[in-house]
Formats: sequence, structure tokens, C-alpha cells
Amino acid sequence: MGSFFPSSFAPLDPQSFSDESKAVIDFIEEYYRNIEKYPVQSRVQPGYLSEKLPDSAPYGPESLEDILKDVSESILPGLTHWQSPNFFAYFQANASTAGFLGEMLCSGLNVVGFNWISSPAATELESIVVDWMGKMLKLPSSFLFSGTGGGVLHGSTCEAVVCTLAAARDKALERLGGGENITKLVVYASDQTHFTVQKAAKLIGITKSNFRAITTSFSTKFAQSPENLRAAIEEDIKAGLVPLYLCGTVGTTACGAVDPINELANISREYKMWFHVDAAYAGSACICPEFRPYLDGVELADSISLNPHKCASESHSVIDYKDWQIALSRRFKALKLWIVIRKHGLTNLMYHIRSDVSMAKRFEAMMKPEIESKGTELNRELLNAVNSSGRAFMTHGVVGGTFYIRAAIGATLTEEHHVDDLWKLIKEKAQNLFLN
Amino acid sequence: MGSFFPSSFAPLDPQSFSDESKAVIDFIEEYYRNIEKYPVQSRVQPGYLSEKLPDSAPYGPESLEDILKDVSESILPGLTHWQSPNFFAYFQANASTAGFLGEMLCSGLNVVGFNWISSPAATELESIVVDWMGKMLKLPSSFLFSGTGGGVLHGSTCEAVVCTLAAARDKALERLGGGENITKLVVYASDQTHFTVQKAAKLIGITKSNFRAITTSFSTKFAQSPENLRAAIEEDIKAGLVPLYLCGTVGTTACGAVDPINELANISREYKMWFHVDAAYAGSACICPEFRPYLDGVELADSISLNPHKCASESHSVIDYKDWQIALSRRFKALKLWIVIRKHGLTNLMYHIRSDVSMAKRFEAMMKPEIESKGTELNRELLNAVNSSGRAFMTHGVVGGTFYIRAAIGATLTEEHHVDDLWKLIKEKAQNLFLN
Repeated sequence: MGSFFPSSFAPLDPQSFSDESKAVIDFIEEYYRNIEKYPVQSRVQPGYLSEKLPDSAPYGPESLEDILKDVSESILPGLTHWQSPNFFAYFQANASTAGFLGEMLCSGLNVVGFNWISSPAATELESIVVDWMGKMLKLPSSFLFSGTGGGVLHGSTCEAVVCTLAAARDKALERLGGGENITKLVVYASDQTHFTVQKAAKLIGITKSNFRAITTSFSTKFAQSPENLRAAIEEDIKAGLVPLYLCGTVGTTACGAVDPINELANISREYKMWFHVDAAYAGSACICPEFRPYLDGVELADSISLNPHKCASESHSVIDYKDWQIALSRRFKALKLWIVIRKHGLTNLMYHIRSDVSMAKRFEAMMKPEIESKGTELNRELLNAVNSSGRAFMTHGVVGGTFYIRAAIGATLTEEHHVDDLWKLIKEKAQNLFLN
Repeated sequence: MGSFFPSSFAPLDPQSFSDESKAVIDFIEEYYRNIEKYPVQSRVQPGYLSEKLPDSAPYGPESLEDILKDVSESILPGLTHWQSPNFFAYFQANASTAGFLGEMLCSGLNVVGFNWISSPAATELESIVVDWMGKMLKLPSSFLFSGTGGGVLHGSTCEAVVCTLAAARDKALERLGGGENITKLVVYASDQTHFTVQKAAKLIGITKSNFRAITTSFSTKFAQSPENLRAAIEEDIKAGLVPLYLCGTVGTTACGAVDPINELANISREYKMWFHVDAAYAGSACICPEFRPYLDGVELADSISLNPHKCASESHSVIDYKDWQIALSRRFKALKLWIVIRKHGLTNLMYHIRSDVSMAKRFEAMMKPEIESKGTELNRELLNAVNSSGRAFMTHGVVGGTFYIRAAIGATLTEEHHVDDLWKLIKEKAQNLFLN
């Protein structure tokens, strides 16, 4: 340290690029081989890492060997292992070889496709795969580039919601004739809708008190109630407010509820609101014909986010995607999606979804005869006991005032025996708790 | 096609993960070895790709071999090669082996660090490397986690500007006592400031007519003029408007102008505006002591974006980064930055910056004795002639009404002889044009 002065610097030499990249591939391969040996949920205490790492950057270069040693010893213990087959928490962030290959090509070529000419293939491939997605989901042609619509690969659902909300706001303010009317605009969603919508509304300047979380209940399986929605809208109109935007969800985070898209779409039309369908969680399952009915009514929506979203479209000979998203710069994300779809094919993608659904049903069937509500406090203790065993990781949800343990099944590496083991683990921990 | 029905599906088998990943590494290695053989700017026509690719997703899986063949034959011709040593356009999006290794680990581990517990290492490493960055730039402790500040790795400058603008807006509206005052809020930047600020202001609801692009001129080398700024502010206040946010730029996109940060900061304080320093383009050069003076005055700013940005900070035992950015989900970006800094060390990073600056000076020195303005039309023709040769790619700028050719020097693979070749190419094309 301190005595190293470079006389040359070749940070992208093809030979060492190849050698070092392959060493990292070996490292990741080894990680996947051992992934079940790690506690699924990290056990570190807050601040653990600053005790292990220096508090300023090194002056001289360090070797890949040293860096990978630190990844093993300092980083891996601080990870919650999303790719573990025993990860049943939050939502699935599924890695796959195909996705990884796509990411590598994207990073290796490292082009920035913010407008057409900055890399035509990036823009054109995105339009092509977004249309593939739209067709896989049987979206009407008004959502496709080959029809009168189009879509964009955002970095996150939140970005899609921000962009559609901003478009709806600007359209409404123009109609109302002045920016000061922003305080009158109201956004509607159910109380099960992801927090993202509320956050996005705040970001684009909607008054906090003008966000309506329509109450759901067990009687509708926590789907949004058109009656409650209509009552809220009428009350707002009486108070001089202006309905702006309604979000319908296909697959809520807490319990997978599906809002009645068709009825919500009709109410939106009646009140001239923007209707957005957030299908981030369950939308991709709709590539299987048996699940497609969940999206019925989407043809009346203004936009949908899983990946594609519909925009008012004009005929341009080229698309500059920078105008379709928040940021100017963008990765060549289409390359990844293209490779994932091709390398698996529609048939394997459907197989994967059906196999996840069937494992979830298997779990439900095992559980059903034995279920008995023990109240929030015991549920919480049980969840802690399972998670701190390191053998599985689940999260919780609260719907209709009830705290419950939530098992989200569908990690890439999860097989039937992992689901069986999860149920055994839960029973084992429950027995311990209830005997004490 | 059509006859394939899977009976099992293992999209993340460690052995095939490793084999196929290494095949892609070989592909990328080969790409880097041949990168100078491709025309730097893509020569395809709009719509070229839809003639080559099917218009819907394949039903059955396809082999990696077929996919890579299509990348070679269909995608590469449609790329503008940002990693070419002859890429002198836009800005540098520099690939490096270290960055690639970081991206691979990030994709391979594939954790989603939206809150602390979802992967503690992701959050903690981000705080640590953001502090490293802050110290490398000699930012005051009010910008560091180890002091009273902190920062976040956003996906883009635009996101940093959106977040700081929204924070400034909410603070101002609270002071003014009502959301309808949003129409009074004014955002200031120079006419050289990146379009991103205007786009971000629109997104968070600032009236379009309340964005002030302060006129710059050749006399200040296109840096923002404090006098013009003050005049604009005074005029707005007289008209009943409220100054909200000032953006100062360190390294403008068109010509690398540096705004007088210290003077702008003082004006911001005087009028109680949020002062943001956008150092996206030239900020990282300030890790070299000889360039650090460009940031003088930053200690008076509310926020800075290169990567870290300062926020009002409270003492939390853990950080949930989802609250620091637009999106909920996020990649483990800190891992990449950590590896890049460690693998190169501060000394090599400074060497790289100094070598780029010295190449730019070499180019300037070659050019200076021979420069002669030939007017916009000839400049445009000359740029087209250079770019369509395929041997180099530059873009243009317009400052003070003058169209000029812009050579941005600093791609990872660029060496002195590439800069010499660029000048020879320009002279060759200029002679052809002026003789005709």
C-alpha cells in the first residue's frame, strides 16, 4: 500500500478479462452447489461489516483472490440467500443460467441505448421482445407496437407507476386548466395495493390526503370492492375533488388477491380516470391459458405493468427510449429478456409456472387439515423460530387485521422435497412452542 | 418447434451454468479482441431487426449456440460500439474487467437489498463504499455516513435529481402552507445544464414555465453567471414566485464547463433554495488533487450527485435503502463499485483519469495550429464523413449558437495512437470536403 505507482494500466485486457471472469464463474458455481448449507436468512448484527472492512479506499490495487476471499468471509454471511431453494419470503427474484448469460452479454457489450442511434439493436430488440411478451399474455393489439401501442422495459414497477401517474396528472391538469388544481387530484387503490403506488403518487406531487386505500375484506378474498370504490369516488366528487388514477392489482403482495379488472376498468371509464393494471406479481403466470382470465378486462385499461405498458402512441420511425422512462441512460435489458425467452421457450416457462403452482397447492393440501389459528403473538414466535433455524425463510402479512405467516413458493431451485421439508420444519417448531 | 413438452426443467444447474457461462466469456473475449474491426457507429437502417427476428416468442427452447450466432449476425451489426477505442461520442460508459466481475457477482448472488434484513451486506457495503467515494473526493463529513450525512447508489443522475427535487419541493410546500403553491416554485440551472434537470422538474410537478435556463456565454467559458442568476431570481420574486432549487454543474455535457460552485452556493443560501451539484460528468476526476478545486464550495451544497448524495440525516440503527430512491427493489450495485475500487486502487484510478486528460491535451495541441471555423454546414458534413467511415464516432454540440464537433476522449481501450489516428482521419475527411 502507498508505494505502488503504475506506469501503465490495462483494465480491459482480453486475456485477463477471460481468465478472471472464469475464476468468478467457478466461484458462483461453487456458491450454487453449496447454497443449501448457508442459513437462508442472514444472522449478522447491524454494523457487522464496518468492523470487517477498512473505512477508506485502498491506495494500491488488490488481487482477485483477496477480493473473493473477502466475498466469502465478509459478504456471504451478510446475505439473505434469495436463490436458496428454502427461500419462501417476499417475492421470487429468480436467477437462471439464461438470465445470467443475458446479464453477461449486456455488461460485456455495455452499450447505452438511450436513443435509437446510440445502439439501434438495443432499441429495436426491446420493441420486439416487448411485443413477444404482449403476445404471450394475449394482450390486445392496442398494447403492441405491431398494433397501436407499445411498451418499455423499466427497472422496476415503481418506475412504471411513476411514469403513468405523471402522464395522467399532466393530462388532467391540462383539462382542468391550471397546475394549482393538483391539490384536487385523487388516486385510488385497494388497501392491499403495494406501497409503491402511494410512494409514486407522493413523488409526482399528489397530496398525501388524496390517496384512497379502498378497504378490502375476507368476503372478497381481499380483492378491491367496486362498491366501496364507487362510494369513495362519489364522496370525493361531492367534496370538489377530481378522480385521477385507479390502480387495479393482479396478485397483491400480501395474499395474492386479484382485483376485478373488468369492473374496475368500467368505473374508471365512467369517471374518466386513468386505469393502470399492476400485474407485477401474478401477471407473468397469465402466459398459461388457465390463468389468463385474471387479466380479463385489461383491454379497457390505459396501461399495464409487468413489463410492457401501453402508452398513447404516435407513429415515429425510430423510438428514443429515454423519453419513455425516468432516467436518460439505460442498460441493454432487452438482451437478457430475449435470451431468457429463447433459451427456455414458452413451453418451459409455462412448465415452470405450473410446477410452482402445483407445489403451492401441495403445500396448501398438507397444511389444511392441521391449520388452527393460534393468534398473532404465537404466529410471530413461530415465524421467528422457523427463520432463526436457518433452514427456511418466510415473511409475514397482515390482512383484515390478522397477522399470518406467508410462504411464497417459486424460487428457481425449489423442488417438492423443499416444500415438504418446510412443512415438517413448521410443525416441529410449532410443537416446541406449544409444548412450552 | 411445437413438439417439445418438458418433463423437467433445471434452469440453474451448477454444471451447465458454469459451462455455458464460460462459453459466453469466450464470446465476449473474442468481441474485445476484434472490437476495432467493427464500424464504430452502427450502419443499420431503422427497422432492420424486425426483418431478421421472428415476431413472436419461440415455443420450444433454443440452444446457446444458435442464440450466440444470432447475437453475432443480428445484434452486433446494430450496435454502436461504446467500448471501441475509437468511440469519442456522448460520454464514456467504460467497461473494465473489474466492473464485469462485480456485475457477475451481483447477478449470480441476485439478492434484492431493498431493506436491511433482505440482505444486510448489500446495505452495509453500500454505506461503506459511498463513504469511500466521499473521502476520495474529499467531501466534508456532513456528506458522509461517518459524519452527519450519507449517500445512495442510484441507477442514474436523473434519479438523484428527481429525489432531491422532490425533497426540496415538499420542504418548500410545507413552509408555504399548501400544495397549490406548487405553481409558484421555480427551478434554476444554466442553459448548458443537462436536460435531465428539466425532465426531473416536470416529473415532480414543476410548471414548465417555471424552469429557468440561465443564459451562458463564451466570455465565461459557458459557466453559469451568478449575475444573470441573481437577476432572474429577483425578477421571479417580484412576480410573486418562489425560488426552489438551483443546479450547479461540474462538467457540462456539451463542452465540459464548470459552474462557480462557491458563488452559486452563496446565492442559494441567501434565497433559501436547495443547491444541488451535478458532477456526473467531471466529478470523478476530482479524486485527483489537481482537479479537486472544481468542487470547492460543495461544502455549502445540500446535495451532490456523482454517486453519493447528501440527505438530511437522522440516526437510524439500520438503513432501508428503498426509502432513499424511487424504486423499491434494487441490485447489489455496491458490490460492483467495491470491486472496481479495490481491484484498481486509488492510484490506478487516478492514473486512468490523468492519462485521459493528457490524451485530450495532446489532441488539443495537435489541432490548435490548424483550426479554422468553416461554419455549421461544413462542420456537419465533416462529422458525417468521419462517422460514416466507421473508423471513429464523435457527436456534436451547440454552444453560444455555434455548431461544433465534439471529441470525448477516455474510453477504456483508447490509447495515444487512437487519438493520433482520429486527428489524421479528421484531416483526411476535411481535405476531401474542402477540395470538392
